[in-house]
Amino acid sequence: ESHELKTLDAGRLARTSPHTVARFLERLAVDDRRVVLRLLNIEEVADVLSEMESDDAAEVLGRMRENRAVQVLEALDPDDSADIFGELKKAEQKRLLGGVDPQTADTVRTLISYPKDSAGGVMTTDVATVSRQMTVRQAVDHIQTLNNRFEHIHYVYVVDDEGKLIGTVSMRDLVISKTDDSIGDIMKSELRGVLDVMMDQEDVALEMAKHNFHALPVVDSGNLLLGMVTDDDIIDIINQEATEDFQKALGAGGDEAIHDPILNSVCRRSPWLLVNLLSAFFAGGVISIFEEQISHLTILAVCMPIVASLGGNAGGQTLAIVIRTLALGGLERKDSKSVLIREAFKAGLNGILVGMISAVAVGFLAGRWDVSIVLFVAMILSMTYAGLAGALIPITLRKMNLDPAQSSQMFLTASTDIVGFAIFLGLGSLFLL
Amino acid sequence: ESHELKTLDAGRLARTSPHTVARFLERLAVDDRRVVLRLLNIEEVADVLSEMESDDAAEVLGRMRENRAVQVLEALDPDDSADIFGELKKAEQKRLLGGVDPQTADTVRTLISYPKDSAGGVMTTDVATVSRQMTVRQAVDHIQTLNNRFEHIHYVYVVDDEGKLIGTVSMRDLVISKTDDSIGDIMKSELRGVLDVMMDQEDVALEMAKHNFHALPVVDSGNLLLGMVTDDDIIDIINQEATEDFQKALGAGGDEAIHDPILNSVCRRSPWLLVNLLSAFFAGGVISIFEEQISHLTILAVCMPIVASLGGNAGGQTLAIVIRTLALGGLERKDSKSVLIREAFKAGLNGILVGMISAVAVGFLAGRWDVSIVLFVAMILSMTYAGLAGALIPITLRKMNLDPAQSSQMFLTASTDIVGFAIFLGLGSLFLL
Repeated sequence: ESHELKTLDAGRLARTSPHTVARFLERLAVDDRRVVLRLLNIEEVADVLSEMESDDAAEVLGRMRENRAVQVLEALDPDDSADIFGELKKAEQKRLLGGVDPQTADTVRTLISYPKDSAGGVMTTDVATVSRQMTVRQAVDHIQTLNNRFEHIHYVYVVDDEGKLIGTVSMRDLVISKTDDSIGDIMKSELRGVLDVMMDQEDVALEMAKHNFHALPVVDSGNLLLGMVTDDDIIDIINQEATEDFQKALGAGGDEAIHDPILNSVCRRSPWLLVNLLSAFFAGGVISIFEEQISHLTILAVCMPIVASLGGNAGGQTLAIVIRTLALGGLERKDSKSVLIREAFKAGLNGILVGMISAVAVGFLAGRWDVSIVLFVAMILSMTYAGLAGALIPITLRKMNLDPAQSSQMFLTASTDIVGFAIFLGLGSLFLL
Repeated sequence: ESHELKTLDAGRLARTSPHTVARFLERLAVDDRRVVLRLLNIEEVADVLSEMESDDAAEVLGRMRENRAVQVLEALDPDDSADIFGELKKAEQKRLLGGVDPQTADTVRTLISYPKDSAGGVMTTDVATVSRQMTVRQAVDHIQTLNNRFEHIHYVYVVDDEGKLIGTVSMRDLVISKTDDSIGDIMKSELRGVLDVMMDQEDVALEMAKHNFHALPVVDSGNLLLGMVTDDDIIDIINQEATEDFQKALGAGGDEAIHDPILNSVCRRSPWLLVNLLSAFFAGGVISIFEEQISHLTILAVCMPIVASLGGNAGGQTLAIVIRTLALGGLERKDSKSVLIREAFKAGLNGILVGMISAVAVGFLAGRWDVSIVLFVAMILSMTYAGLAGALIPITLRKMNLDPAQSSQMFLTASTDIVGFAIFLGLGSLFLL
């Protein structure tokens, strides 16, 4: 890796996108990171830090000379600045806040007071505001005087004297309007997609997907304009939420990354495996009730994984659809009951199909058509149950205000194993022995 | 539902976001859809159709009076127009194309020639272009003369006489520059994130996440500017790709939706269940080799689900992380080998933990410490294998240029079942009987 570092030069680095540099840095040791960062100017360091996970960025920042760290903090967008700041130790926060200019310090203090996953935690405060009485020319002049840092101006928000949001004007409107039109005339006052500052970031992403705007304004409960959320922030949130759902659903950490230290990953995954172990013992317990029968008719043991595997996977199909539908806001509470019935029915219909094939195969392979019939019935019942459970688990988790994705697959296969074994071995011991 | 319809009025409908109206329409019968759409004007219908799945939108369009359908097509963004158009029958395409103005017809013809999932299929051609010789004032005047339909102008692209892309100017740059500056002076000529027209939409989304721009330009192999992709299109793509990955990973249809007709869902899910059935028969086959041993020592059958369940879930944890890392472009091919080793190691370490607990529990519950020891070793081996398989399956699928997510969980549990049973029952018959 140090060879790679020696061939780096500042010019090549500056031409690389901040995103790529950030990914590269995350994999370097702490000392090597400093070598790379020394090649970049303040602006470039800020761009790179804004693309890193905020805890990593905070570590980098914490190791810079105070003077440079302060400059970087001032160069960052306020929302990124606050995210990184929130990860620093209290003592470090205090030390650095003393150095930055009072206005930035104020903004950062306000922003870190909002929950990290709320609209307030995600928004930027770099918002251009104008009043309705201004002419287009005055508004353009005003925007020109605004700090050069306002990179994301695509919308200008119109506020009244108290700072309450009353309309929006896009940059495009400013460009194509006559210079003596008044802002009040050209602004859009029917406001859609205004975000409450405490709204959860997942809901913010859903709102953003609904409205095809590049930014949505954030207000408090009194309609006071506090900032805006831009859709490049939302893209990161959507990717992050999708990763979380997927990884949690299969029992890994929501923000676990593939290059995390091995022991970290192991510790985050083990609690769910312990839960899984407990449920597997229950499944084993169900089997142990039928030990006597199995020793007389070992084909029951042979068929057990067929019942368990098909049940688990049929349930998983439902689970995936339901979790994604919930994540995208596509399932209303009043529809829950019909979804449960429909999903059970879908899995049950597939149960008839695969049950029939299994039954014929077992009949021919083992010559026991009585076992076939029991297997057939057991598979229909256990797969119907699996479809029901695949929908019920995430819907119930949501009803309890828990994350519908959290390790749902483990809960699912635990229950389909237990129910599948009970049905199959129960029917078997009733009718075959 | 018809009661709901009667209380609808045009005003309320117009104040509802097009996204919400689209979701509402998708759940209505065809006749009821027409009742709703009749309450909307052309622009509003176009907004709603652009928020629907393109096949649904095409169905709606196909049932409109030709005159109205043509007006709607013209009011749509060209990319949406082409998407919907592509879903119509050839005869209908021809009939409607005859009606729309020649320029729109041309654009639509060009756009439907690109694959639907490529940058070309996703881009809009409503791009404002200027030349480098223009002054800011001339550029602004030029943009003002452009069709009012160019809603998404946030960037203006600078092209040479042949239409080749040489720079970008943001609306913000136009607003804050002096009116007699030349475009050549204020344009950004270091172009990052230029998309090739044939690039896959998944890669487009990755590029968009990398660069914090609101739109990226699309060019052909000769750098001729063809259009641009805006990030509100990307948000839909990212959500769609995340849904596809998740649902396919668990064996459901990538674009299956919860309200799809029951038989549709059943047919899409059944092929994977049949694959699963085949693999479950192999797992059963492994068990049948050991039937003799199981009839003498039924505790083997009792412990089987413990080995299978923990293996499947430990592998699933790895699978989730690897699929998401691949989807977000975070795993380079050269890292594959180290990832395989690390993931096997992580799962193996957890195998030691849960194996130990299982062994102690089985020892106390069943009083067979020899079985405990076999179970302990089998769980470490099978979970190590599971970690390896959880990484190997998606990485191999990608190497074969298949979708890494496609039903990976089913392939995984199939192999962990088979290997787990073989290890556990094999060791059991060697050392316990």
